[in-house]
Amino acid sequence: MSSAIFIQSSFPSKFLNKSLNTHFVPSSKLPVSLSFKPRTVFRKRFSVRAGLIEPDGGKLVDLHVAEPERELKKREAASLPRVKLTGIDLQWVHVLSEGWASPLTGFMRESEFLQTLHFNSLRLDDGSFVNMSVPIVLAIDDSQKERIGESNKVTLVDSDDNPVAILTDIEIYKHPKEERIARTWGTTAPGLPYVEETITNAGNWLIGGDLEVIEPIKYHDGLDRFRLSPVELRQEFDRRNADAVFAFQLRNPVHNGHALLMTDTRRRLLEMGYKNPILLLHPLGGYTKADDVPLSWRMKQHEKVLEDGVLDPETTVVSIFPSPMHYAGPTEVQWHAKARINAGANFYIVGRDPAGMGHPIEKRDLYEADHGKKVLSMAPGLERLNILPFRVAAYDQTQGKMAFFDPSRAQDFLFISGTKMRTLAKNKENPPNGFMCPGGWKVLVEYYDSLTPLDNGRIHEAVPA
Amino acid sequence: MSSAIFIQSSFPSKFLNKSLNTHFVPSSKLPVSLSFKPRTVFRKRFSVRAGLIEPDGGKLVDLHVAEPERELKKREAASLPRVKLTGIDLQWVHVLSEGWASPLTGFMRESEFLQTLHFNSLRLDDGSFVNMSVPIVLAIDDSQKERIGESNKVTLVDSDDNPVAILTDIEIYKHPKEERIARTWGTTAPGLPYVEETITNAGNWLIGGDLEVIEPIKYHDGLDRFRLSPVELRQEFDRRNADAVFAFQLRNPVHNGHALLMTDTRRRLLEMGYKNPILLLHPLGGYTKADDVPLSWRMKQHEKVLEDGVLDPETTVVSIFPSPMHYAGPTEVQWHAKARINAGANFYIVGRDPAGMGHPIEKRDLYEADHGKKVLSMAPGLERLNILPFRVAAYDQTQGKMAFFDPSRAQDFLFISGTKMRTLAKNKENPPNGFMCPGGWKVLVEYYDSLTPLDNGRIHEAVPA
Repeated sequence: MSSAIFIQSSFPSKFLNKSLNTHFVPSSKLPVSLSFKPRTVFRKRFSVRAGLIEPDGGKLVDLHVAEPERELKKREAASLPRVKLTGIDLQWVHVLSEGWASPLTGFMRESEFLQTLHFNSLRLDDGSFVNMSVPIVLAIDDSQKERIGESNKVTLVDSDDNPVAILTDIEIYKHPKEERIARTWGTTAPGLPYVEETITNAGNWLIGGDLEVIEPIKYHDGLDRFRLSPVELRQEFDRRNADAVFAFQLRNPVHNGHALLMTDTRRRLLEMGYKNPILLLHPLGGYTKADDVPLSWRMKQHEKVLEDGVLDPETTVVSIFPSPMHYAGPTEVQWHAKARINAGANFYIVGRDPAGMGHPIEKRDLYEADHGKKVLSMAPGLERLNILPFRVAAYDQTQGKMAFFDPSRAQDFLFISGTKMRTLAKNKENPPNGFMCPGGWKVLVEYYDSLTPLDNGRIHEAVPA
Repeated sequence: MSSAIFIQSSFPSKFLNKSLNTHFVPSSKLPVSLSFKPRTVFRKRFSVRAGLIEPDGGKLVDLHVAEPERELKKREAASLPRVKLTGIDLQWVHVLSEGWASPLTGFMRESEFLQTLHFNSLRLDDGSFVNMSVPIVLAIDDSQKERIGESNKVTLVDSDDNPVAILTDIEIYKHPKEERIARTWGTTAPGLPYVEETITNAGNWLIGGDLEVIEPIKYHDGLDRFRLSPVELRQEFDRRNADAVFAFQLRNPVHNGHALLMTDTRRRLLEMGYKNPILLLHPLGGYTKADDVPLSWRMKQHEKVLEDGVLDPETTVVSIFPSPMHYAGPTEVQWHAKARINAGANFYIVGRDPAGMGHPIEKRDLYEADHGKKVLSMAPGLERLNILPFRVAAYDQTQGKMAFFDPSRAQDFLFISGTKMRTLAKNKENPPNGFMCPGGWKVLVEYYDSLTPLDNGRIHEAVPA
């Protein structure tokens, strides 16, 4: 594996970088730039300085129990009422435990839930706002609620009944499923993947509280070494002397159009005066819908892209973002951006229709393609983040490579859609030269080859998503 | 009619009180009080001062064309593409024209629409937020869009094709109906009154822009004299030397439980150190659903309540709030509160399930009864407003009058629901003595008497709503 894929070292993962708390910079109210500004203007508005962007709330949350207290906590956990976590619940415990959702300290209580639904942001004690657009909540059913009774704490256990965490100062409140869905997705149409997976059959109550996570969450899938926490990412960016970090969220294979965009972004950041901009190539690693390429295959593909030299290992950090996917478009892209602030990114690349999908029952996209970018640029609590809109890249037939689309010679460009790409890979055909590095393409072909076609022509996944 | 019902005088209604702009007080980030605080604590947090609360954005918007320019504007209007307004559109023109939605200067453009849907607030140029929770938008259909073509302005005309206003610097954008409904109401269930009335059959486009309203909007229904603009209300509060204004939004007849609450609120404000708190009794005058009591009957009822001395005319201003009703619960209550800031109120009384209704297709209320109060207390842009939760009043059988509910002797209290009240009035029966003043009750009985029962037992309205 390429050296650019940062492999988790042995430093104590619970060490909180103290320097994070020592130079709190109040959230400025600068207007958010929707595009690159000419150098001089830009530098007036965003000063180039050493040190990474502050996490939301000024301090990165770490919800792990300190090593010496773990045995004590395990004993306490054994004495408390239990709530069993689904796989996706466990992903959220992971997300919360490492501070991606800082300053959240556990599953949302009703006050946080309502602020998220109505305002996509949380008000802090000092009156400032942090962004928080998707509810991070834990559902329980009537019988679980009854078993908890008057207890002030519960133990969260995994599917094998192993204690994962203690939830303290709990608050149980009604789970308004329809309202949660409507306000998060802007539709209640049946067929939203995350809704069907986690909400439709979930309990009628939500339980909020502060998390004490007994041991760091691991998946033992061979990829844990790529799951760097925000603290670890910040340490890596510091180690590389990054003076700008630009994050690229993805849940798809990387083609040369993506690579062009990332390379070009770095070039522009250098032009602005940054000395060492570092790319955080940050595939989403939690729940994804059935027809997305599974994480393990995507990681293989990303590895090849780096091996083939499409991206520069020296200035690229590849790591897994542990969040599950909502497919909630403009609402969710805020979460994707906010979490990356906590990981140290001060630039965020946003594409066309981020976190979008087709409408589940109508023949159209669920969201307007430009709403995600617009909403992100106006979102409360994201003022400090510089939003970089995705420039459209397409296959330039005159050059035989991916290039930024030039509308003045539109006929020269070939748009290769995700559907087209999948069809080619399934049929073991090759895309035009220069669309994707050969090693990366080979991984894709292998993935689709591993799927067993069903009688009706739909594909069945042979590997877990 | 009682002297407490302020009758519009002949001062030029377009005169903008200049003093509004001269002492701008930046929005403080004080936590909102969810209940009355003991006097000393309260006074620390909210200083008692002369002068009314500043309007949102520091300046009350007035979108009327100055008298000398009206003829010119009418001639210009005749030359522009036309958009016909519905009755509810006209109510919004009225609301916008007088600055209830300050700092909005017209129907929302997409940037404001998206901020409203996602954040229930708008960011101002200085980085601060004002609250704005319901979309104030104007829908047009494909053929209207085509007729507008490349024009930068359109004329808005009423149902008789009279020009009402010019909309300038227009922006036409897609009307994402499903998303608008889901994010505003938290449901897309069929049967939401405002949705069926204004959205379901509306055009697929929204047109935003700045309004130039040619003449003040009048309804010629005998009630225009009660429709005081925010400027006029502020002048009236100044004339009365109000040092606190507490607003009571209602769309129902006033019973003695309401009156008790209002009287008690004044007593508490006096205890806090205010010298002259004035009540703004502010019935909603725009669109309401078919089974609400129509405005004209409500105004007659309110008049009787004042005549009968249930409320003190010296410290009460009754006026009509021209907004249409969304029945959007926690989302809409923010609009109701925000508009009253612009009218000079710094205290807002919030009840159980404000702006709520039954779920259109399920056997439950659409919103949790306490969500309105909670959301209001946390809403961005409403930090300056003091939220006063409605204390529960019920009929105390031991005293023979409405009193604050005392759970320690629950058996003494009778809760008279809206349904019960309507049934009694329809049957020309009397409620218990002391529930409502006799004059006010008589109006209700007369109203239901004026409705013609249909064969199937449902009532039909003999008067326009």
